[in-house]
Amino acid sequence: MIKAAINGYLGHMGQVIEKLILENDNIELVAGIDKNISNYKGELEVYENVFELENKCDVIIDFSHPSSLESLVKYCTSNKTPLVIGTTGYGEKEIDLLNEGSKEIPIFYTANMSLGVNLLLDLVSKAAILLKDDFDIEIIEKHHNKKIDAPSGTAYLIADTINKELENSMDYVFDRHLSHKKRSNNEIGIHSIRGGTIVGEHSVIFSGLDEVIEIKHSAGSKQIFGQGALRAVDFIIGKEPGLYNMRNLIK
Amino acid sequence: MIKAAINGYLGHMGQVIEKLILENDNIELVAGIDKNISNYKGELEVYENVFELENKCDVIIDFSHPSSLESLVKYCTSNKTPLVIGTTGYGEKEIDLLNEGSKEIPIFYTANMSLGVNLLLDLVSKAAILLKDDFDIEIIEKHHNKKIDAPSGTAYLIADTINKELENSMDYVFDRHLSHKKRSNNEIGIHSIRGGTIVGEHSVIFSGLDEVIEIKHSAGSKQIFGQGALRAVDFIIGKEPGLYNMRNLIK
Amino acid sequence: MIKAAINGYLGHMGQVIEKLILENDNIELVAGIDKNISNYKGELEVYENVFELENKCDVIIDFSHPSSLESLVKYCTSNKTPLVIGTTGYGEKEIDLLNEGSKEIPIFYTANMSLGVNLLLDLVSKAAILLKDDFDIEIIEKHHNKKIDAPSGTAYLIADTINKELENSMDYVFDRHLSHKKRSNNEIGIHSIRGGTIVGEHSVIFSGLDEVIEIKHSAGSKQIFGQGALRAVDFIIGKEPGLYNMRNLIK
Amino acid sequence: MIKAAINGYLGHMGQVIEKLILENDNIELVAGIDKNISNYKGELEVYENVFELENKCDVIIDFSHPSSLESLVKYCTSNKTPLVIGTTGYGEKEIDLLNEGSKEIPIFYTANMSLGVNLLLDLVSKAAILLKDDFDIEIIEKHHNKKIDAPSGTAYLIADTINKELENSMDYVFDRHLSHKKRSNNEIGIHSIRGGTIVGEHSVIFSGLDEVIEIKHSAGSKQIFGQGALRAVDFIIGKEPGLYNMRNLIK
Repeated sequence: MIKAAINGYLGHMGQVIEKLILENDNIELVAGIDKNISNYKGELEVYENVFELENKCDVIIDFSHPSSLESLVKYCTSNKTPLVIGTTGYGEKEIDLLNEGSKEIPIFYTANMSLGVNLLLDLVSKAAILLKDDFDIEIIEKHHNKKIDAPSGTAYLIADTINKELENSMDYVFDRHLSHKKRSNNEIGIHSIRGGTIVGEHSVIFSGLDEVIEIKHSAGSKQIFGQGALRAVDFIIGKEPGLYNMRNLIK
Repeated sequence: MIKAAINGYLGHMGQVIEKLILENDNIELVAGIDKNISNYKGELEVYENVFELENKCDVIIDFSHPSSLESLVKYCTSNKTPLVIGTTGYGEKEIDLLNEGSKEIPIFYTANMSLGVNLLLDLVSKAAILLKDDFDIEIIEKHHNKKIDAPSGTAYLIADTINKELENSMDYVFDRHLSHKKRSNNEIGIHSIRGGTIVGEHSVIFSGLDEVIEIKHSAGSKQIFGQGALRAVDFIIGKEPGLYNMRNLIK
Repeated sequence: MIKAAINGYLGHMGQVIEKLILENDNIELVAGIDKNISNYKGELEVYENVFELENKCDVIIDFSHPSSLESLVKYCTSNKTPLVIGTTGYGEKEIDLLNEGSKEIPIFYTANMSLGVNLLLDLVSKAAILLKDDFDIEIIEKHHNKKIDAPSGTAYLIADTINKELENSMDYVFDRHLSHKKRSNNEIGIHSIRGGTIVGEHSVIFSGLDEVIEIKHSAGSKQIFGQGALRAVDFIIGKEPGLYNMRNLIK
Repeated sequence: MIKAAINGYLGHMGQVIEKLILENDNIELVAGIDKNISNYKGELEVYENVFELENKCDVIIDFSHPSSLESLVKYCTSNKTPLVIGTTGYGEKEIDLLNEGSKEIPIFYTANMSLGVNLLLDLVSKAAILLKDDFDIEIIEKHHNKKIDAPSGTAYLIADTINKELENSMDYVFDRHLSHKKRSNNEIGIHSIRGGTIVGEHSVIFSGLDEVIEIKHSAGSKQIFGQGALRAVDFIIGKEPGLYNMRNLIK
């Protein structure tokens, strides 16, 4: 059994991951770390400071805040504890910390912890390279009616991933109702559907001569990020020091 | 057997309809009318002028050009011959001709001869009325990469049909990537996907609280307009004088 | 404000409906009724026996057990309180009770409380009548991998509804891999996809000559039954005595 | 310009490929070969016997009959002409011929000449390996109502490809309506939808915890096999002797 601790234990994702670990035969939750433990009354041992862990776990899963990264890396490098990070919002300073830390320990860090979304990225990359000359690429994403940004970050991630494979030759098109011309082959159309309580759906459509290939991912809840984190735990244990991401896991 | 003649016989739709009639047990093709018969060498009797028909058919199916409507209506009212019209591009003058003619004979006229598209209009109208307060409505249409207008005429037809049912309270939204706010309940999002050789697809999505209803029509060829025309032939025979459309047929 | 009480308040659906009422501007929750109140510590007044309600509500919403119907009808008829019923598993005896009770009060009773599913039934009925001669009908349903029955009750409900409209002329086909013949026009194919945690999806596909119409309903949670119940509450208030269902609401 | 000849020139696929070559900037059609040239009146030079070609082409594209393979291989090995084969129905004898011939020339041979279907096979293989423990796999295929076999050959090809990647641990399930148990993780459900004139659609659905990935291919006509053949022509020119297939092209 892998002994895991969760940093950000009392947050939404911390709680999701605790439940997933309970149903996992391979991983055991031994402790939590959280900045706000004043009202905590549960049974799991939860610390305010990561150093109180005193080397009692084999891996730390972090879904918290960029501000906690520094002490987290310090603890993990001191104790040779691998680190799995699902926290978002990192800037240059945090990336530097990851690069430094990963010289001494294996660190898994990803912008999107969902296994499915990362698989989608991998599959569409492959499809884009093969089909680029004869197929047109369009992305449709669907989210709930409370979401204020459009397109979704994941839709941009998909488009950017494809564009990079195609040597940045593609233009993004968000609206066709004012133009009056044929589609060009170097467009990626990106369409944002909003409605109801849709959790998140991303579809990439490759349309060619009498042939369409569609690759679609639908999310039903944030559990998918927790699932991805547990896959990352399995992956990171025993690895050499270095900075890893979902692409390494998927390969 | 219903004896039919096709006006615009040598055009693309005329040829499509001829093939469909050959496989139809109920309708027989007795003649064609076409302005350009100089090179015609086929077996069917084809006339340059509709009056040469001399009352030998029970119905005329017209897929031609607005300019031929005047003589067509004159012939049909004189001979009490019902008329099924799939020609597009009519202006005020032609609408007047239809209104006049339909006082004496039954005329079937529709902006979109596809049975399926008209059924879609009927179903989404019903859904829109029932769901308006709690569901968000979005339209996705897909067409080939040579199409220069966007959204498609049919997408606008769908949106306008819904909007009319909802007392013209809806705004059309074509692009969300520059806005930064929640979706409003009185939006209809309209999205134009372009790619490859897609013949035509229209999908209307109603998204509510943990529930989505989608109504979708996909066309594989222009045969669907011919199929609709044959349904209209069956419908119009024996009707009272008047102007009919697909809504009457579907009811 | 409509004053509502929930029978089966402490059950899963009772709790779902309480949350939905909290966000509803039109309905107010004034009491609960539940057989198991021994451990209840909440703030809402909850009674073990429906007669303790003493006419303090305008409508009762019932998601409980067939065994509680008798006292429920007795209370409601005595107090002229309309009744909305989402309980399932009724037999002949309960149907008799509903018929008797509905002579004195309006009762709303449905086999499936989802507005969306009932709208789907209505739309596919219409489509089936119009398209029956030229289109083939297939049903695909998707549910999670723990579901033991197949096809789903709702898939059968859809097929039976279509079949009734088509004068019971249709055969249900569940498996084609052993047959070796063309599809007949009087088949309804029914396909049960199972996987992961899919909550529930039902799709009806009408395929004709170069044309496909698809009507699809996707559920994300059991909240959809609660939503339907609140619509039924709005509908039932002020109605004449009688037995009503979702079809009446949708018309 | 690559100079190509088509064996089976007067057949349906031969004619499809001729049209595609006309629109291709890279390939030129220099001759046809066909057994039945008695009524041929076209402009292209067409021979009854492949040896009449006399080394005037850089590659032969073959969509014909197994019986013509022997002379084809003899001609191609003598003239060092690469060979692209889309003919189906090969038995052991023909496979031996291919193996022998490919010692001297490059031969491209595939059971399904569609680039899209082969890409689908590649993508689902990858997805299956990554997701096998936590996701359930189902295949839905849709074809026209005249098709007599079910599931389609391509659906079996997909299932077999997945099964091979998963060490033949999977059972195929075609019907669930008589069973009454939970889905097992080692099932692949295969569902055959039949209706109208659907050309061909294959969808592979991976369903996990609150997450679904779907990979779908839709064909609109047999042109897709011609498109694949032209890709194979581009691929095979200049290759070392050997037997190649779509997997080599896609990698």
